[in-house]
Amino acid sequence: MTFAEKLQDLRQLMLAEQVDAYIITSADPHISEYLPVHYKAIPFACGFTGSAGTLVITQDFAGLWTDSRYFTQAGSQLMGTGYGLVKLKVPHTPEYIGWLSEVLPSGAKVGFNYELITVALAHEVQYTLAQCKIDIRHVDFISTIWQDRVGLPAENAFLIEEEAAGLSISAKVNEVRKVLKINKADYHFISSLDDIAWMFNLRGKDVEYNPVTLGFALITPEEVKLFIEKQKLSQTDIHTLNQQGVALHSYSEVATALKNLPKDIQIFIDPKRTCFGLFECLPKSSKIISGINPSTHLKSLKNNTEINHIRKAMLHDGIALTRFFKWMEDRLGNEKITEWSAAEKLASFRAEQESFVGLSFNTIAGYNANGALPHYSVTNESNQDILGDGLFLVDSGGQYLYGTTDVTRVMPIGNCSSIQADDYTLVLKGLIEGSKLIFPEGTKGYQIDSICRKPLWEHAINFGHGTGHGIGFFLNVHEGPQNISPANVDVVFKTGMVTSIEPGIYRPGKHGVRIENLVLCVSKGNSEFGGFLTFETLTLCFIDTTIINKTLLAADQIEWLNQYNQMVFEKLQHMLSEEEVMWLKEKCKPI
Amino acid sequence: MTFAEKLQDLRQLMLAEQVDAYIITSADPHISEYLPVHYKAIPFACGFTGSAGTLVITQDFAGLWTDSRYFTQAGSQLMGTGYGLVKLKVPHTPEYIGWLSEVLPSGAKVGFNYELITVALAHEVQYTLAQCKIDIRHVDFISTIWQDRVGLPAENAFLIEEEAAGLSISAKVNEVRKVLKINKADYHFISSLDDIAWMFNLRGKDVEYNPVTLGFALITPEEVKLFIEKQKLSQTDIHTLNQQGVALHSYSEVATALKNLPKDIQIFIDPKRTCFGLFECLPKSSKIISGINPSTHLKSLKNNTEINHIRKAMLHDGIALTRFFKWMEDRLGNEKITEWSAAEKLASFRAEQESFVGLSFNTIAGYNANGALPHYSVTNESNQDILGDGLFLVDSGGQYLYGTTDVTRVMPIGNCSSIQADDYTLVLKGLIEGSKLIFPEGTKGYQIDSICRKPLWEHAINFGHGTGHGIGFFLNVHEGPQNISPANVDVVFKTGMVTSIEPGIYRPGKHGVRIENLVLCVSKGNSEFGGFLTFETLTLCFIDTTIINKTLLAADQIEWLNQYNQMVFEKLQHMLSEEEVMWLKEKCKPI
Repeated sequence: MTFAEKLQDLRQLMLAEQVDAYIITSADPHISEYLPVHYKAIPFACGFTGSAGTLVITQDFAGLWTDSRYFTQAGSQLMGTGYGLVKLKVPHTPEYIGWLSEVLPSGAKVGFNYELITVALAHEVQYTLAQCKIDIRHVDFISTIWQDRVGLPAENAFLIEEEAAGLSISAKVNEVRKVLKINKADYHFISSLDDIAWMFNLRGKDVEYNPVTLGFALITPEEVKLFIEKQKLSQTDIHTLNQQGVALHSYSEVATALKNLPKDIQIFIDPKRTCFGLFECLPKSSKIISGINPSTHLKSLKNNTEINHIRKAMLHDGIALTRFFKWMEDRLGNEKITEWSAAEKLASFRAEQESFVGLSFNTIAGYNANGALPHYSVTNESNQDILGDGLFLVDSGGQYLYGTTDVTRVMPIGNCSSIQADDYTLVLKGLIEGSKLIFPEGTKGYQIDSICRKPLWEHAINFGHGTGHGIGFFLNVHEGPQNISPANVDVVFKTGMVTSIEPGIYRPGKHGVRIENLVLCVSKGNSEFGGFLTFETLTLCFIDTTIINKTLLAADQIEWLNQYNQMVFEKLQHMLSEEEVMWLKEKCKPI
Repeated sequence: MTFAEKLQDLRQLMLAEQVDAYIITSADPHISEYLPVHYKAIPFACGFTGSAGTLVITQDFAGLWTDSRYFTQAGSQLMGTGYGLVKLKVPHTPEYIGWLSEVLPSGAKVGFNYELITVALAHEVQYTLAQCKIDIRHVDFISTIWQDRVGLPAENAFLIEEEAAGLSISAKVNEVRKVLKINKADYHFISSLDDIAWMFNLRGKDVEYNPVTLGFALITPEEVKLFIEKQKLSQTDIHTLNQQGVALHSYSEVATALKNLPKDIQIFIDPKRTCFGLFECLPKSSKIISGINPSTHLKSLKNNTEINHIRKAMLHDGIALTRFFKWMEDRLGNEKITEWSAAEKLASFRAEQESFVGLSFNTIAGYNANGALPHYSVTNESNQDILGDGLFLVDSGGQYLYGTTDVTRVMPIGNCSSIQADDYTLVLKGLIEGSKLIFPEGTKGYQIDSICRKPLWEHAINFGHGTGHGIGFFLNVHEGPQNISPANVDVVFKTGMVTSIEPGIYRPGKHGVRIENLVLCVSKGNSEFGGFLTFETLTLCFIDTTIINKTLLAADQIEWLNQYNQMVFEKLQHMLSEEEVMWLKEKCKPI
């Protein structure tokens, strides 16, 4: 069936069911960043494969609303499908709601799958459209027309040891219950897979790159219920869960369980990480207490056990990265290396490391112009040979049983231009300014963000993504609640948070520079002005110094760089061969 | 009548009217920062004279909720009044609502004067208390017991020339109407006095320091109504207003005018700058469009005429400041100078300047420990002689017919300690970092704030107020919508905005340092990364260099300082006597 035929079928279903507009979101009932194939409805409906977009269909128009990252890609993928490209003015905003309220008459009906939209977004749609007397309703026409749809993933899942997690399941549930009590909630429903993974020390393989497993959790005053397909778990793990006070229920029972909750309960939910469909199952008399899931906050504060494990993961990652860059340098000019083969080789070096599980995201390996695409993903068509002169950007990460990594380095190839050298140095300067920052308790990510950008701003340069994101402990590579970005995210940095710092400069068609480390927020002690915090850099991979324009760096920035490379060398040398040590020593020598 | 007796009377009225809790806010119907005496209900009720606080009275408890600035002052002023001090955890938040919802039984009634509370706050009170089944109602017991209350101010008001304002009244109304149209509003009600002053090129003397006059404005599709006591205006001004399409109505007619509005209108109001009482007069069928008043945004973007006038006001202010600091230096050690007499002298130098109207706020003149109080106001008891060794902080400003100024300088007296020198230098460093910042279009104040603080953070130092505030054109010294503060105020900096930059360091009981300039946001041109902005410093007053610790400043910061002082000298020299020129030249010599 062609995309145009599918669109025709959808429109007929809309007519039959008296739905005037149909919204197809890119989501699953857990509001995951990476979707299981089962939920990839947008590629199914129109062929668009970008990570962000919404389809809206009326009898007169069908369109894909997406952001500037995907304008080119969507333009070509939508050709002949019957869908038009609607360019978002502000990324990640539901601008189609405004459009619907303009084109639809009063009394119209807008349908979408309530399970594939957050409570927050559904309420926004509902509220805005209600002002024009337009109703919403739950429909799922995609399921009706999707013939050969794959089922839900059902990969094995497993518990990580309490000694690895640092806290038992029951201890974590207690921590969450304390937060619920402060918020005057007695019940709590959790849909987000990484929150569930953290709380139950549970990991899985249901989603690419994210070591999570499909499930829901419900905390009641008496019970902790985990909704998961039991056959995914070993008998030992089932026994441990039971011992820790967790009652197992089938994944499919969750809606019924919510419907059968007592009346007048006070239930805590995260409106941005709970789907509207399950929210609607709650008894109407429930008092809803809205907020970021308590586990999201607790999860972000890595305990000492987790931190020590992350340090170990960083050693392994650093070894793999050192070997990879040495391999690149040794082979370049002698054998053909492409973006693709380089990424494969890096993955193989990581795979050699103890406790490696998989990649934490699809490696970004872009040479020159491809490096200028912040979310570049190599394809057969785009794959470039790495030769001549330029910059090779590699943003990659691994999932280890003891931690998740995410690191970006830029490797100069051949001779670099002075613009390339300056861009490289300014990005490094931004990284250093963030890494050595001392800031008071209570500081939020948006306050740190501008300090990392300032060295670029001085040269009238900026970049279009955030400066950093939280990262999980053997969990999702993107993890809230904190981030470092210009957006006014009202989350305070605290000791134990692990966050990336990754400024960049992108010159379309030419080259891209991004340098990224993971940093741990640590205490810097107290003064008469209160408590202060700073960062400790966790990532262990030398920063290339060969193309640095030293005149752009201040003395304290050069000192930071030299100390960092020295630390990398000292920590990694014992795990490297003599030849590798010699090579790394040269890379880490002070400038 | 003692405060305790007043409290007793209030409690009897509450009993008689079945009001279980009575809230007394510090506000007027225009939600002004500075209140006419008529509205100073809190000093009347309990004797507390701080600028921020709320009284809440039940039969069992009466308390003043205020923030940490006023803990000491409130503690002593409330002694024996029957009111307790309730310390706010978070400044400027209505924490008493939570308290009320805890202590009052279901079915209770909470009373307050609907005219002295914003729409936003009233809705918050109403919503929170409704969850505990507690109702609100309008009561005004203060008016009942306040026997010798002064009337509303009725000072003369006047129009400023179109040539001074840069835009005619009708042109400004047109600009506002364009914004209303974008927001799909056909009506607009304005209560805030500085918005009204801007839109009608109107100034007055009803409020201390703020050159505004009491009024309300209503824009309808056909009309522009200004509610003001006509006798305040000259016949010429009345004629001009009429010519510009403004219909004049009595100040007291506003409530009736709102009640008589047609049904089903779409009306734009600013919920934070409109009182609940007048909001409640709107027909229930009105569709409310909420946002910051369009005039607040338009007013903040100073036009070229205004900017040129502000430059002139800065020259006059700079002359006054130069003469003041020279006078201080000449007299110190020879005659007794106190904080009070210094402030008086500074005011007299300003008063000598052309087009001077008055001070823009109560001068802060604090020596040593008094300088450590950011909002210090000298009293007979606190007044210090300026002698010995230390730092003298002067934060002051003038209202001129052609602009409003606000400037802080610190004058070293005798010998300064190295901590004082370092504090002075770090604050200066923060000012310089903000003043020379280049930043992309779209930048918000909270992004600039941390860049000004970073030099202090590096030494584990911070300060408890914002780094800067917007300022009016011959209008209020504090003006929105932009500011520079850690709070996530979602307002973008634009060319034409005038803002203060004023970092500080306060060592309680010892000394305080704050250095403040006003800066104009200007374009820095475009690069391939978009448009960039920067600041041009408007304030013209030398920055003392004698106690600077040069080792704490980077080369580019020293360069900025030398250029700034050189510019001050060049611009002011032609308006000074030969002796003053010699003196200023020495003060402005490069370091």
